[in-house]
Amino acid sequence: MRIATIYQPVREDLAEVEKQFKLIVENQRAPFPEFHEMLSHVLVGGKVIRPSLTLLCGKFYNYDLVELLPMATASELLHIATLVHDDAIDHSSVRRFRPTVNKIWGEEKAILLGDYLFAMAGKFAAATGNLRVVKLFAETLRVISRGELKQSFSAFKLEQTFDDYLERISAKTAALFSMAAESGAVLSQAPEESVQILKDYSFNLGIAFQVVDDILDFIGTEEEMGKPGGSDLSQGTLTLPAMLLLKHYPEDNPVKRLFEDRDKRENIAPAIEAVRNSSVIDECYQVASGYRDKGCRNLKLLPDCPGRRSLAELADYIIQRKR
Amino acid sequence: MRIATIYQPVREDLAEVEKQFKLIVENQRAPFPEFHEMLSHVLVGGKVIRPSLTLLCGKFYNYDLVELLPMATASELLHIATLVHDDAIDHSSVRRFRPTVNKIWGEEKAILLGDYLFAMAGKFAAATGNLRVVKLFAETLRVISRGELKQSFSAFKLEQTFDDYLERISAKTAALFSMAAESGAVLSQAPEESVQILKDYSFNLGIAFQVVDDILDFIGTEEEMGKPGGSDLSQGTLTLPAMLLLKHYPEDNPVKRLFEDRDKRENIAPAIEAVRNSSVIDECYQVASGYRDKGCRNLKLLPDCPGRRSLAELADYIIQRKR
Repeated sequence: MRIATIYQPVREDLAEVEKQFKLIVENQRAPFPEFHEMLSHVLVGGKVIRPSLTLLCGKFYNYDLVELLPMATASELLHIATLVHDDAIDHSSVRRFRPTVNKIWGEEKAILLGDYLFAMAGKFAAATGNLRVVKLFAETLRVISRGELKQSFSAFKLEQTFDDYLERISAKTAALFSMAAESGAVLSQAPEESVQILKDYSFNLGIAFQVVDDILDFIGTEEEMGKPGGSDLSQGTLTLPAMLLLKHYPEDNPVKRLFEDRDKRENIAPAIEAVRNSSVIDECYQVASGYRDKGCRNLKLLPDCPGRRSLAELADYIIQRKR
Repeated sequence: MRIATIYQPVREDLAEVEKQFKLIVENQRAPFPEFHEMLSHVLVGGKVIRPSLTLLCGKFYNYDLVELLPMATASELLHIATLVHDDAIDHSSVRRFRPTVNKIWGEEKAILLGDYLFAMAGKFAAATGNLRVVKLFAETLRVISRGELKQSFSAFKLEQTFDDYLERISAKTAALFSMAAESGAVLSQAPEESVQILKDYSFNLGIAFQVVDDILDFIGTEEEMGKPGGSDLSQGTLTLPAMLLLKHYPEDNPVKRLFEDRDKRENIAPAIEAVRNSSVIDECYQVASGYRDKGCRNLKLLPDCPGRRSLAELADYIIQRKR
């Protein structure tokens, strides 16, 4: 299933979101050319899953594009802002096949660009004119940054449980997926039970998405992903594949050796190899599929519309994707 | 004039803001002790000028503390968030007599703490239930981060005009002062002309405040200021004192030598000395006083209340302060 086909019911709306992005970029061209360049570097070419969720979840009931489009724009801007900060924090060099903002302009300017994008996201959320959505937006940013901090404090720690992992990825990924869906539902005056169904769908989709992300960091190729693999282990982030490997091979485990002697960069490759050559990848895919199924379970209770089918297909796409 | 006397009309309200800060800190004690420590490190002991502005400007008309207090809290949180990021960007080691967040926990965690504080500020702004105020909040963060970026891109550039300087400090300081006042005025249902008077007052106060800040970076002692002086020059930030020195002594100027050969750290002390031993400090104080006067000009058009007197006194305090 091609992603363009899945997005078909909101294709024109996504083009409008893209137009807003172009406007944000163009507005800085004359007054601040260096900034214009930074913005045009980051405001292109994402998977646009989050704005699609806002739009798809926002079309079951009485929607008004005047409210829905700004929120879709806010969902993607918030996502990009967190990516800019994440890359600065991780000192990453490559994303989406291109050098990161921090690689080109330095970490200092990446921090400020991220702040600017948070502000723009906030402006678009406020432009919906809906206070519940604005509050949800602020709360989501709070949860995400706290989750990232928690991850940062747990770096290179071996004693982490599956629940710790779940808490971490709920905050850093599923919260934003959930916000994207809930805001769309709320803005289209969905009844509270439907809001809850769409929120649950998207939250579980977010969990599945992150589990697959964590798998791809082990098995994906740089050509497919547009960024180097193995970044989680080198940051000391214990994700599900490594966690399961530790569980199955508690003695003499290459992940254990890496975390206990983190300065030895040569410990990374054996750890990645060990995960790849084990059954944990399959196991992780089963976990991801479980969350996908859990998320999709109640979609059938929603009114039938082209968007509903897309949501189900998107859930499959998220498991199968190679980047 | 002691600052406590100036704040007298809003003393109890400021205590409530402090209570909110304590709550933010305490809420993390059990679930996330490391984060609790970070929050308790930054959420104490500022000059609380910005929340005082929200409160003082919010008491001329029909105010409701249920709206005014969250906004005062938001004003200070937004300020602290920008400080945390600024210190990370400048790699500063000391603020308010204590090590900075980035010094203790590293720049990576400082970025995330700042993001969290932006989110909390946004939550409190949204808690006012007033969309105009929420939009103003987001726009202010946008202006601040863009201004900081502009400053960052103009580092070590000699060809800057007074207008460039004014644009820069309008964005990085006066915008937040202005927001603090405007939000208070709006929430207390001030007529539009009064909103404008309070906004102008606070904006000009912000300019005066930043000019004095830039003076103190040259003449203040570390004992008084709680942080080392000369930081602007070492960051390559051309502030008014250095700018005026360049204007008066265009040839063989130590600031020029420093900016042209920024790696020579020994060029900093002579540049600071040259500013101190010149008339530019007096000149800068005249500029600051001019903005104070401009800001206070129309205060007399507002209803007479204890807060009005405090605003005038605060303007004088801002010029005279030693830190």
